[in-house]
Amino acid sequence: MTKELPAQDRRIHFEPDNVDIVVAQGDNLLQAAIDAGVHINASCGGAGVCGTCKVLIRKGEVESIRTEKVSDKAWEQGIRQACQSRVLTDLTIYIPVESRLERAVQSRESKEVAEALATGWRFYPPLSKYFVELPPPTLADNASDLSRVLRGLKQRYNLSNMTVDFDVVKTLPQILRDSDWKVTVTTLVTAVKPRSADKRRPRVINIEPGDMRQQHYSLALDVGTTTVCGQLLDLNRGKAIAQSIDYNGQISYGEDVISRIAYCQKPGGLQRLQRAVVATINKIIGELMTQSGVDVGHIGHVSVAGNTTMVQILLGLDPKYVRLAPYTPAANFIPPMKANSLGIEVGGHVYLFTFPLVASYVGGDIISGIVGSGVYQRKKLTLYLDIGTNGEVVIGNSDWMVVASCSAGPAFEGGGVKHGMVATTGAIQEFDIDPSSLEPVVGTIGGAKPRGICGSGLISIIAGLLEAGVIGAKGKFNTDLPTKRVRQGRDGYEYVLSWAPETEIGKDIVITEVDIDNLIRAKAALYAGCQTLIKSVGLTLADLEQVIIAGAFGSHIDMEKSITIGLFPDIPQDRFVFIGNGSLLGARLASFSTDLMNDARTVAGMMTNFELSENLDFMNNYVAALFLPHTDASEFPTVSKRLGRVRDNKSTPRIVV
Amino acid sequence: MTKELPAQDRRIHFEPDNVDIVVAQGDNLLQAAIDAGVHINASCGGAGVCGTCKVLIRKGEVESIRTEKVSDKAWEQGIRQACQSRVLTDLTIYIPVESRLERAVQSRESKEVAEALATGWRFYPPLSKYFVELPPPTLADNASDLSRVLRGLKQRYNLSNMTVDFDVVKTLPQILRDSDWKVTVTTLVTAVKPRSADKRRPRVINIEPGDMRQQHYSLALDVGTTTVCGQLLDLNRGKAIAQSIDYNGQISYGEDVISRIAYCQKPGGLQRLQRAVVATINKIIGELMTQSGVDVGHIGHVSVAGNTTMVQILLGLDPKYVRLAPYTPAANFIPPMKANSLGIEVGGHVYLFTFPLVASYVGGDIISGIVGSGVYQRKKLTLYLDIGTNGEVVIGNSDWMVVASCSAGPAFEGGGVKHGMVATTGAIQEFDIDPSSLEPVVGTIGGAKPRGICGSGLISIIAGLLEAGVIGAKGKFNTDLPTKRVRQGRDGYEYVLSWAPETEIGKDIVITEVDIDNLIRAKAALYAGCQTLIKSVGLTLADLEQVIIAGAFGSHIDMEKSITIGLFPDIPQDRFVFIGNGSLLGARLASFSTDLMNDARTVAGMMTNFELSENLDFMNNYVAALFLPHTDASEFPTVSKRLGRVRDNKSTPRIVV
Repeated sequence: MTKELPAQDRRIHFEPDNVDIVVAQGDNLLQAAIDAGVHINASCGGAGVCGTCKVLIRKGEVESIRTEKVSDKAWEQGIRQACQSRVLTDLTIYIPVESRLERAVQSRESKEVAEALATGWRFYPPLSKYFVELPPPTLADNASDLSRVLRGLKQRYNLSNMTVDFDVVKTLPQILRDSDWKVTVTTLVTAVKPRSADKRRPRVINIEPGDMRQQHYSLALDVGTTTVCGQLLDLNRGKAIAQSIDYNGQISYGEDVISRIAYCQKPGGLQRLQRAVVATINKIIGELMTQSGVDVGHIGHVSVAGNTTMVQILLGLDPKYVRLAPYTPAANFIPPMKANSLGIEVGGHVYLFTFPLVASYVGGDIISGIVGSGVYQRKKLTLYLDIGTNGEVVIGNSDWMVVASCSAGPAFEGGGVKHGMVATTGAIQEFDIDPSSLEPVVGTIGGAKPRGICGSGLISIIAGLLEAGVIGAKGKFNTDLPTKRVRQGRDGYEYVLSWAPETEIGKDIVITEVDIDNLIRAKAALYAGCQTLIKSVGLTLADLEQVIIAGAFGSHIDMEKSITIGLFPDIPQDRFVFIGNGSLLGARLASFSTDLMNDARTVAGMMTNFELSENLDFMNNYVAALFLPHTDASEFPTVSKRLGRVRDNKSTPRIVV
Repeated sequence: MTKELPAQDRRIHFEPDNVDIVVAQGDNLLQAAIDAGVHINASCGGAGVCGTCKVLIRKGEVESIRTEKVSDKAWEQGIRQACQSRVLTDLTIYIPVESRLERAVQSRESKEVAEALATGWRFYPPLSKYFVELPPPTLADNASDLSRVLRGLKQRYNLSNMTVDFDVVKTLPQILRDSDWKVTVTTLVTAVKPRSADKRRPRVINIEPGDMRQQHYSLALDVGTTTVCGQLLDLNRGKAIAQSIDYNGQISYGEDVISRIAYCQKPGGLQRLQRAVVATINKIIGELMTQSGVDVGHIGHVSVAGNTTMVQILLGLDPKYVRLAPYTPAANFIPPMKANSLGIEVGGHVYLFTFPLVASYVGGDIISGIVGSGVYQRKKLTLYLDIGTNGEVVIGNSDWMVVASCSAGPAFEGGGVKHGMVATTGAIQEFDIDPSSLEPVVGTIGGAKPRGICGSGLISIIAGLLEAGVIGAKGKFNTDLPTKRVRQGRDGYEYVLSWAPETEIGKDIVITEVDIDNLIRAKAALYAGCQTLIKSVGLTLADLEQVIIAGAFGSHIDMEKSITIGLFPDIPQDRFVFIGNGSLLGARLASFSTDLMNDARTVAGMMTNFELSENLDFMNNYVAALFLPHTDASEFPTVSKRLGRVRDNKSTPRIVV
């Protein structure tokens, strides 16, 4: 198989990646690994001082400078710092877990625990770039242009059995000659398979002139019913370098999934909704390019997580039967397809990956979140709660998972809320209230002048108003208070959070009784969903060892206040983990690791769907939860106790129900 | 793996196809094989009288009527007539070679030896149709529509690990419901692999409502520099049901490959040539549809064989570097792509398969011909000669093959010949001349009034005129003859083959000295190519055990006359086999058998290209061959002897040189 190499060439085999590269004798080992697309931590940039790039020399010889970062014992075992080593012979190199980029990714974004939840994955993106310098053809060697490129990939990187996209061939002859036979080949793993079946047989999707390995980006998208969130990922650095969120342009055609499906049944309706969400995606891409300064042509892949209806509409698949009993989606696994065939403004070579889905109301967004948060990897009994227009509830662990979906409405994403907005600059996300003066303290995202209220802000505000007795357990205002902030507005009573001059929008920002009512119904649906689902598997909320909260709330959600309003169960706060947008997290991590992309299939296969929509128990639980925190005080013992104490401390009882 | 089946269901496993089907107990075994896409000969239509559908029952029991077609010994061994057998239990059935359709295909077209040359292939088209009746979804079984179809294919036909084209998903939900969950799934094997690596993992390219297995067609195309030839193949019957030939619309932009490549360098030139050949292909498709009455929507696959330049232009790949040293094509293996993306007017699900090619001047047409004629399967030393605008010469056997290409010009396809035409109705293909009166006997294709002269006619005419002394060894007319048929025309001297009133075109049909000169140069190039190539491998023409002649001559070429004019070597005629359009033959057979499609890869890998264009020996041989039959009479001993005898018999010596 392996041909004899010229005198100066040395072949390096990297494990456990199972990747080869041919370099010149004397080349730096860290650089060789980078060229081969094998990721090794090297936080000091190759100066030898951080000691993170340690590798094990299994076969062959290197010439290595020893620093104090390598212990005697490690040196004897054959551990070397890759950055301090030069290649002497053919090598077999093993990269220990602690030198893999996975940990680097985590530590770099250490403020977020999110990326630490899914474990055991290699940094091995489905999208890869390889640089090859080819010998120009001669009469003695006039193989075809494509054969020459494939031969180069085989010789330098030991890649073989590749499939090739036809479009690559179209421009190849000119690109090779214009670039002096030095090109960068982009490959993609499109098939989602069990990890064990992954044979690393990617598809050649693009060939560019010159060395373009530094321009190596991919796009992760969470396409939600109310909001669309995107991240631009730098695959060389293993991190998101830009992020943008916006309302899904379909909102003007209906607030929830059901109304969107209904709209699709009108003539041209599906096409209109498809164009609307694509326009939103294109706007987000534009914003990401502006933020990062990256050229859109350097995006090589798009990963999308979304609920079944959003994905079907994005792909132009009529969601009609998603809504009609017995609720069947068009496909659980969407075959790979070109992003620009949908109107998404990226290069013609870019494929769109969509997370597999479980059922009509349990979509790829939830699979993505479960993959991203590693619920399927642990024995710990976990509740995973994704708060969006549809709330999704998963209960389970590495052995089993049940999932249910309940319609919460868009309140948590700022929909159906007078001054609601997405979690972006100027959104009120923190709130406190002086129990005596009833004057508010308002904190916004980015510390900007207030523009509106995001989901996490809404929770804080309602919890604060409740604790201060400004509203009662039914969410109605106490109208008998010594403050101008509670007043009669157009939609009934409201509380003024910021006076017009203090705001960005030049208008009073208020929260109304209608807003509060919408939020109560949303949290009731979510809480009832959790209650019903956990009872269906014979457990109670107290059995939960971990609660993972996901949602497009931005970077922050107040757990205590969420429990106060009865959104989350009243169990110890140290069991809660907030991961932000879980759907986007999974889309990002799957872009970093083919392992996790493949795990999406496993997770989809593990999930059992539990239908809430016609469940009587759910309806009873829902009605009982239409209260702050709950009609049954015993469900929220610590909250009831605290609220009681608050009330006892007040001179004037201001309780309204 | 295999689930328990309901009481009445029986699973049949067919060998060596390795295909399963589930049928009801009591079903007819021949019908079960047909449903499973496993082909068994049954020339009597299931009446039990032909005895061709014999199969071996390896496991399980059938209830079978015994006819005199099954011997005692065969009956004891477990041989049964499939058409006379009903399924009682699960079965394992072996289909002996003599019951496979391959032989039926041969005997059906027994006039053509062509399809008997390639052996050892199963009738197993890359394109298949499967009918499934699916259980409609219920709340208890609401798998996605695509999962349901794939499950049906697995249960009924044991097909798994399929890939699916995204477009299939788009229309699937509606099709399933409109067809009452009864659909026909079309699958295609797109990857060309060594036979051993073929894992039968096809791609789902189309799903149609109802049982559409009877509408199962594919298209074979030979795209030549001068002519394009197409056949419509009925994949249920394993035969071509319509055929059409036409001039390549690119002709008006240049007669040969070099001038076409030059034209591509003009602004818009490539696009114009691409559109021209696609228009020709669409015209041929229209003609095939008219002839057969088949709806174009029922064509499921297109196989194209053509030379490197023709294929690159068809695919929109600039052939610039095909012509410039060191002569590199864009790709040896063209990735699969959609036919309608080129403008070919077939369904959007139809892929275009192009035969792999060896080099810039040795294209997929020659690979196709070698596959179709089985040269690579035999030990016999074979000369394969494909006569077209470029003449291709292959010498070799199952161990090795060398190939050369020489520019013959379009004379054999009717190009550069005053009344030349393609081999279709009204073309003069046979010619004889009365040695005394010098009056001709003319035979046309289809027995129609003459419209022109095709390639095989041209050979007959020039041989006849030479033998009768009307022309001399240099191809010049003897102007001193007692006949009005030799006369001075606009292009110099000419011979009138048909007077205007006898023709379809209402004009005298003639052969001119210019025509003859063109043909002499064409045959000289071909003969010199054979000579040079065989010498290059240290052999002589006398060593040849078989000569296979291919070309778009129609159904007929006169071997003796071809030797007479010095086109073919003067060796015993029983070594010659004429296969007609070899390129089209290969495209047809590859459409019938994935085995042969896969062999194309093997053949491409076996061939060594020999460059004639700058070879001095070739130039000398060429000049020496510019004579009828040859300047060196010893090269053509029997011809020289016969011509000498003819001359001796004449009272007046009419030899002109």
